[in-house]
Amino acid sequence: MPAIHTLSKLFLETREHTENLCKPLEIEDYVVQPIVDVSPPKWHLGHTSWFFEEFILKPHKPKYQIFNDDFAFVFNSYYENVGKRVLRTDRGNLSRPSVAKVYEYRKHVTNAMKEFLALGVSQEIEEILLIGIHHEKQHQELLITDIKYILGNNPLLPKYNDSFLENPNQDFEQEWIEMDEGIYEIGHNKPAEFCYDNELNRHKVYLQKYKISNKLVTNSEYLEFIEAGGYTDFNLWHAEGLDWVKTNNIKSPMYWHTIDGKWHQYTLQGLRELDLEAPLAHISYYEAFAYAQWKKCRLPTEFEWESAQDTFDWGTRWEWTESAYLPYPGYAKAPGAIGEYNGKFMVNQKVLRGGSVATSEKHTRPTYRNFFQTNLRWQFTGLRLAK
Amino acid sequence: MPAIHTLSKLFLETREHTENLCKPLEIEDYVVQPIVDVSPPKWHLGHTSWFFEEFILKPHKPKYQIFNDDFAFVFNSYYENVGKRVLRTDRGNLSRPSVAKVYEYRKHVTNAMKEFLALGVSQEIEEILLIGIHHEKQHQELLITDIKYILGNNPLLPKYNDSFLENPNQDFEQEWIEMDEGIYEIGHNKPAEFCYDNELNRHKVYLQKYKISNKLVTNSEYLEFIEAGGYTDFNLWHAEGLDWVKTNNIKSPMYWHTIDGKWHQYTLQGLRELDLEAPLAHISYYEAFAYAQWKKCRLPTEFEWESAQDTFDWGTRWEWTESAYLPYPGYAKAPGAIGEYNGKFMVNQKVLRGGSVATSEKHTRPTYRNFFQTNLRWQFTGLRLAK
Amino acid sequence: MPAIHTLSKLFLETREHTENLCKPLEIEDYVVQPIVDVSPPKWHLGHTSWFFEEFILKPHKPKYQIFNDDFAFVFNSYYENVGKRVLRTDRGNLSRPSVAKVYEYRKHVTNAMKEFLALGVSQEIEEILLIGIHHEKQHQELLITDIKYILGNNPLLPKYNDSFLENPNQDFEQEWIEMDEGIYEIGHNKPAEFCYDNELNRHKVYLQKYKISNKLVTNSEYLEFIEAGGYTDFNLWHAEGLDWVKTNNIKSPMYWHTIDGKWHQYTLQGLRELDLEAPLAHISYYEAFAYAQWKKCRLPTEFEWESAQDTFDWGTRWEWTESAYLPYPGYAKAPGAIGEYNGKFMVNQKVLRGGSVATSEKHTRPTYRNFFQTNLRWQFTGLRLAK
Amino acid sequence: MPAIHTLSKLFLETREHTENLCKPLEIEDYVVQPIVDVSPPKWHLGHTSWFFEEFILKPHKPKYQIFNDDFAFVFNSYYENVGKRVLRTDRGNLSRPSVAKVYEYRKHVTNAMKEFLALGVSQEIEEILLIGIHHEKQHQELLITDIKYILGNNPLLPKYNDSFLENPNQDFEQEWIEMDEGIYEIGHNKPAEFCYDNELNRHKVYLQKYKISNKLVTNSEYLEFIEAGGYTDFNLWHAEGLDWVKTNNIKSPMYWHTIDGKWHQYTLQGLRELDLEAPLAHISYYEAFAYAQWKKCRLPTEFEWESAQDTFDWGTRWEWTESAYLPYPGYAKAPGAIGEYNGKFMVNQKVLRGGSVATSEKHTRPTYRNFFQTNLRWQFTGLRLAK
Repeated sequence: MPAIHTLSKLFLETREHTENLCKPLEIEDYVVQPIVDVSPPKWHLGHTSWFFEEFILKPHKPKYQIFNDDFAFVFNSYYENVGKRVLRTDRGNLSRPSVAKVYEYRKHVTNAMKEFLALGVSQEIEEILLIGIHHEKQHQELLITDIKYILGNNPLLPKYNDSFLENPNQDFEQEWIEMDEGIYEIGHNKPAEFCYDNELNRHKVYLQKYKISNKLVTNSEYLEFIEAGGYTDFNLWHAEGLDWVKTNNIKSPMYWHTIDGKWHQYTLQGLRELDLEAPLAHISYYEAFAYAQWKKCRLPTEFEWESAQDTFDWGTRWEWTESAYLPYPGYAKAPGAIGEYNGKFMVNQKVLRGGSVATSEKHTRPTYRNFFQTNLRWQFTGLRLAK
Repeated sequence: MPAIHTLSKLFLETREHTENLCKPLEIEDYVVQPIVDVSPPKWHLGHTSWFFEEFILKPHKPKYQIFNDDFAFVFNSYYENVGKRVLRTDRGNLSRPSVAKVYEYRKHVTNAMKEFLALGVSQEIEEILLIGIHHEKQHQELLITDIKYILGNNPLLPKYNDSFLENPNQDFEQEWIEMDEGIYEIGHNKPAEFCYDNELNRHKVYLQKYKISNKLVTNSEYLEFIEAGGYTDFNLWHAEGLDWVKTNNIKSPMYWHTIDGKWHQYTLQGLRELDLEAPLAHISYYEAFAYAQWKKCRLPTEFEWESAQDTFDWGTRWEWTESAYLPYPGYAKAPGAIGEYNGKFMVNQKVLRGGSVATSEKHTRPTYRNFFQTNLRWQFTGLRLAK
Repeated sequence: MPAIHTLSKLFLETREHTENLCKPLEIEDYVVQPIVDVSPPKWHLGHTSWFFEEFILKPHKPKYQIFNDDFAFVFNSYYENVGKRVLRTDRGNLSRPSVAKVYEYRKHVTNAMKEFLALGVSQEIEEILLIGIHHEKQHQELLITDIKYILGNNPLLPKYNDSFLENPNQDFEQEWIEMDEGIYEIGHNKPAEFCYDNELNRHKVYLQKYKISNKLVTNSEYLEFIEAGGYTDFNLWHAEGLDWVKTNNIKSPMYWHTIDGKWHQYTLQGLRELDLEAPLAHISYYEAFAYAQWKKCRLPTEFEWESAQDTFDWGTRWEWTESAYLPYPGYAKAPGAIGEYNGKFMVNQKVLRGGSVATSEKHTRPTYRNFFQTNLRWQFTGLRLAK
Repeated sequence: MPAIHTLSKLFLETREHTENLCKPLEIEDYVVQPIVDVSPPKWHLGHTSWFFEEFILKPHKPKYQIFNDDFAFVFNSYYENVGKRVLRTDRGNLSRPSVAKVYEYRKHVTNAMKEFLALGVSQEIEEILLIGIHHEKQHQELLITDIKYILGNNPLLPKYNDSFLENPNQDFEQEWIEMDEGIYEIGHNKPAEFCYDNELNRHKVYLQKYKISNKLVTNSEYLEFIEAGGYTDFNLWHAEGLDWVKTNNIKSPMYWHTIDGKWHQYTLQGLRELDLEAPLAHISYYEAFAYAQWKKCRLPTEFEWESAQDTFDWGTRWEWTESAYLPYPGYAKAPGAIGEYNGKFMVNQKVLRGGSVATSEKHTRPTYRNFFQTNLRWQFTGLRLAK
């Protein structure tokens, strides 16, 4: 556990960074929710404040003045233990509280926390604080991907800013890393450092011999799959993947457009010609799987990925694995609302490993387990082959 | 047809009035679309400008500079003749163009029109102009009711302003007006004045003897119906009305809330105790019909309403009639896009007569035919009994 | 009111005729419900028996032995006053009661009725009996059209029998009948003869001058509309009609198939080449309207149809009219369950006039008002132009 | 691989057994499909015949006479490689082919196979034959559970027969079997015996120390969970499990009914009082998981189950495991249609281990992997705790 003044500094930096991410936005951009998976930026700003108010300030700070009694209803995400909340599908229907009011709320909470932390806090509270900080870092990533969705699905295709680099290429040759059969240790093992409960317990797994690519699949490789008719060759797909392709008329990754016969990609810097050497992004698990089938390879399991990860370059794409999101042996969720953080999603989702260009600094690590439903594509999701 | 300088003045007043209606709004309020029937205020501002750009400036003003080529796509409502458009359900997903940009667009169009009208225009253009003005007046009414929906369904229940009076009471006794059997003339008959194509042709109908109330049904009368179990007595309802009640768990008019056992109503002035003597508002056709059944009365037809309308007070509620929205004998729709205005909605809707507290000045008249699907309630819809 | 022995004979003939209609069926054909609007034949057999049991035998026949207490639940159609019932969508999920058991039930009811009628009954019961007989005649028509749907949507396209003639041609020239402006009398006016409550009260209407065709639109005429691109010309359609065409990918009337470039039609005699001179059948109101628009004509109102009907040949197709299904002046529904027969459907449906090749003998008449939702096509629905 | 005459005998016994299972049915019971997961019995009869016709007779038997060209369309289940097929949701809409015709088809195929097998066949064909036999055995189990659904959801609650024992009790004390940490071998390892491709390759896994119950959870234990409010305690449920409970208003296992305050259960022998000591059946994965949470235990993984299975009694309930259905290391699916058998379902399903009272003789084994979506309950699904 870091010392309290380090934590306090980290808290303030995190709060500020969240606000900086929103600087390029128009007020209107803070409000909309074009699909259920995307939340309005002002909701992220409020929700990350509510987390500190609900779990630290309300129960622990003497004489804490709640900013607005209705905000708990507006900014609770999914915590059943904490009471009623706005339906997730309705977040984009709320024009109020206004963006200005949400920033006031943030300031109110940040200041109250600063004051509170200055007095020193118990270890229990330090732990919740650390969760709160990492929780906000997660929402920083969501902010970026949600903003990309909001702008990138607007018919005017406005850019976010001129400097956000989504596509750092991997300028080296593809090679296969060979890994031996045997017992490997999986899960978090640095007690002094933060991790989520789903990274524990550290435990042994037995892996067969396998090979894993040192490089992510690129746009140009995926283009070959498209041009070879990959989206219509039913033998490559899971049955429900094929349904998804047909129902949604999927023909390419999200944000890809053909304009006058040429492939383009919407990026946070605006619409660009497709960068062929960039790592592929914005694909569903179904697409990742079908591509791997087509290459007569497969996706790695999360255990294979973790065991080999220090031999390759990672961190610009969340990488789909073949592993379902399940509890590790001995997994125990925390009691009460904090326990709702991870455990209740451990069914019908896939694990992603790595991190992405949108991930906040120091937020990911080799044992980090991200997870999403198999059809989702609005994150910077990519893929690495194994065999 | 009014003289061109009268028209020109009316045009400018109408444009200004639309903008005045939006003055109490926060920028965020301009953006959201909580249900498909409600459009974001900024969409109304843009769409009413697009109408003049599309039907007058583009085809008729020499060297007119289109403000933004993409706006036709964004602000077309339902005109199939004019090309593709944003899906109606997606209007609330668009953060751009920003509100500021939409006001720029308005100004651009208003100025170009002003310039254009100053030169004098043909009668054909005058006619389109007049339609455009009345079209904008219709959207003024929708603006008010859509704003009410946006604010009145927000958990914070913000008010619109302090002065909007929704509930002008009718301070007189209820009486039955008796009307004779015979032939009546229906439809618009003042060639010098504006009307929509659906008010023509003027034609004869034969009516049986009937009685019609001089007064709208009040909140207190409707409360009796609720308290008598009206919402669960299936004999009072149409089969599809009963389905609607059950599926949507309807128990009162829209905007009614019980707080600590007392009925309240959200109004544009904020949440208020229910005004018992005010005319009932925000009911569906199904509810109007069921109430009339319960009173052993019925709703008037639109012909009965029109024939008797000069003997009673009307104009604060749109009044549901028993009449389906159908063409009058000899109805001819205009060619091209303007012809899409009315005709294509003449199926499975009911006619409403009157006007409402949200109706713009001089926008309604005795022959005016409003129309909505039978389940809609976000307008100021009320009811008057006949028998 | 006919004498009781006449009624009794009519009752027995009607019961027998229903059973004769089912003779060509396999047991399996009695069971399925491919769409919600179609009921399984065994359900029709049971429901028409339940009607007599519920409204005559149970309340009026001393010591009547109910056949099976559960059948009221299984065979009630929509009578809220009579208690719970199997959801309409679930009728095709019931393998039991078996067909044999349903025939036993019919026999039980028929015999009990016979016994009961032999003793003489009050006028009140005679009236219910007459409704029950006409109710069963209506279900005879539904039986035929439901059987057509069940067989005609089976990939094996089995025929019903070799003798059912769907397509009696009208072998005469098309001409326009001219009708004068003026007052006409509408509604049933033969007190000695049966009619439904929705045909009353007889009342005056005022009609403008109009022309109505002496002949139904033929398949060959409708083919011209298809070949001219009628289904994609949006100016011809109501907005919701166009949605219906797109959502359901409609390109021709129901039961039309192109095989090797040639139009065929599934009929109760099996698949046949399209009979070009036959009157068009199996179209929705939307299609009827669009066709009329394309011909620069319109559909007649039900009043125009009734006023002119004795000057033209009708009875092989139910003819869509422009009229919404609404109560006549002074319409009063019967108290209790019998009152649910017509009134509660008087919203968002269109009136059809005439009769069809599937209509039972003496079941229709000039004042008969049939009604359906605007999208339905499984009846023998056609159209006649007016202008 | 068994000798061909053994296989031939097994084939004929299997065909006959399928038909015996249907003996208690009325013809009507063969036809209906009350939910999409249930297929009409006649479809099972046809589909299992089509499998032999499509994969053995058509390609391999000289001069084989196809019974009916349309049957491939009617009886293909999900094999994309084999062409178009009736939508799964439409199986219950088909009254034809009649049951008699389907039995003719069965006989035709059985006889052709008999003739064909008598001549001796290649090993490749023997392998397909063996798959076909096991495929039919799987459908025997589905036949029983589908028949239970068809009869058990009929308002008349008819029984299947008097002899089918669903509820063999486990008359011994519950105990915890302790298993050591270490490496275990998983997967099929008897090359001479049949297994599905999803049971291969045999491979090592590393398991932590665990305990597994020797006994299935009983009805009386589950009743305690219900009575303790288990269905409404949100902390016990996955987020999507809770949605499922709310949306479907789930309050007990499938087929449980309270009658006059007493719990009953529909069984294939008809409605019975709930047998408290019987092993629980007809629960979803969500319910199994929530129950285990409530007991502060968990479900075993499929590897734990397989490693411990020879120390406990199993085979009357399919047992939900915590494992997602995923390929084993080195899994390779067969080319072409046979390869569609298992692989394309390996996403978003859970593995069940064991077998059930409905499983055909010799059809299951310790390495057998059954799999279903997490919400399904119409199989005899139960649960065994681990910790």
